[in-house]
Amino acid sequence: MDNKLKRNERIGAIVKVLCDRPNRIFTLGHFTEMFNAAKSTISEDLVIVKKIMETMSFGRVETIAGAAGGVKYIPVVVPERRAKVLNQIADRMRDPKRIIPGGFLYIGDLLYDPYFMKDIGEIFAEMFSYRGIDYVLTVETKGIPLAMMTANGLNCPLVVARNENRVTEGATISINYVSGSTGQIQTMYVSKNAIKPGSKVLIIDDFMRAGGTVLGLIDLVHELGSTVEGVGVLLETSEPAVKMVSDYTALMTLERVSREEIVVSIKE
Amino acid sequence: MDNKLKRNERIGAIVKVLCDRPNRIFTLGHFTEMFNAAKSTISEDLVIVKKIMETMSFGRVETIAGAAGGVKYIPVVVPERRAKVLNQIADRMRDPKRIIPGGFLYIGDLLYDPYFMKDIGEIFAEMFSYRGIDYVLTVETKGIPLAMMTANGLNCPLVVARNENRVTEGATISINYVSGSTGQIQTMYVSKNAIKPGSKVLIIDDFMRAGGTVLGLIDLVHELGSTVEGVGVLLETSEPAVKMVSDYTALMTLERVSREEIVVSIKE
Repeated sequence: MDNKLKRNERIGAIVKVLCDRPNRIFTLGHFTEMFNAAKSTISEDLVIVKKIMETMSFGRVETIAGAAGGVKYIPVVVPERRAKVLNQIADRMRDPKRIIPGGFLYIGDLLYDPYFMKDIGEIFAEMFSYRGIDYVLTVETKGIPLAMMTANGLNCPLVVARNENRVTEGATISINYVSGSTGQIQTMYVSKNAIKPGSKVLIIDDFMRAGGTVLGLIDLVHELGSTVEGVGVLLETSEPAVKMVSDYTALMTLERVSREEIVVSIKE
Repeated sequence: MDNKLKRNERIGAIVKVLCDRPNRIFTLGHFTEMFNAAKSTISEDLVIVKKIMETMSFGRVETIAGAAGGVKYIPVVVPERRAKVLNQIADRMRDPKRIIPGGFLYIGDLLYDPYFMKDIGEIFAEMFSYRGIDYVLTVETKGIPLAMMTANGLNCPLVVARNENRVTEGATISINYVSGSTGQIQTMYVSKNAIKPGSKVLIIDDFMRAGGTVLGLIDLVHELGSTVEGVGVLLETSEPAVKMVSDYTALMTLERVSREEIVVSIKE
């Protein structure tokens, strides 16, 4: 670069680089090279970047010491922002036009909204980032955007289990599970090499009724020789009150769906 | 806020807000309120933000005049970055361990990699943003992460067609199409109200052989009374040379898969 950037220009650029790749460590050398600037200069820039992120409640910028050290940005969803986005989603869910015969609620459009899912993905990423997650796992189809945004926030790959065995998945392993919505035994498949043995896995799904699908995903993780470090669900139903899994985090509860009212509550 | 932010702090914060929401228009008032600062101050900040984005080749910041005016960030993928990410993906595809009996190639892990898909999504978002896209449409399953990232870059909702009619989709419309991989007639379904009539739709898919699936998606869009403004595909096969659709953009070509070699090329 011919002209060196000014401090405020470097700061804008550092913010862009860090926020584009949450939870990824960037070395000081990455920035000294990018800006042709001294380490001391970049260190001073980073102090300002940290302050911005904290003052504006955008997240945290952490310094990691040592040979593999550097800085990384961790999204933080403050309670006000969390309440705001969950309330927006809940409001949208309360539209009676969403009712499907049989007591179901159509929420596909919300689950495919990039902004809602980006925010919810950051909520889950913040919640589980301290667990050192290696993979985010979900099952097709509606949970994929949310799981993708969570994986993006955690700087890790996504793995998607399928409901049918497809030739393009290569060698797969399968597990049988009882779907809570239908009560029927179903099978899910995942590529045999999708998750390295000994990995830490976060399970993400959009919806939980009895928890049969999540239980199937947990079995799948164990079958692959890995451990489940957390389960995050956007919306659970209040009934059945006792789920097939106990250790999970749901952000919202669908209390009741009837012609008269749709009751959705947000969990603290 | 008690203490007003300094210029370099405001600049960092503006970069974060704009880049978090590509293609969304933010009014000047949004920032004057956020920072408790004068319009003239924010205008000066924005000049610097624009310069950073251009100097660093991160994208463009455009000013929109008029009552609904403001500024927005448009991701720009410079040729060097485009070549870099496509080459990284191609290199990964050339691993012989990916060969599946029948001449298929396992690329699920690449399609579920948030960073690859974020970059490819930005390539498509930049390519089609001038068309004023209202929706991104794909069909389950493997194309969903890419389509989601494209929708995020275009500031518009994603719509996912399904291969089975699910109760949770509500009323659906369906279309029959011939799958190029199997040669069989299949059906795909989409919620009747997922796309408003008269909309402009961008079709995104991960893989194209003969183009039957994309042709089905085009029919679906027409059936919903909307128009197709573009078709973006990550990887096409060189055979059959003549596809069922003519107007599409593929970024890479899978020339040949055999025990001896995997030939993948990148299109200019």
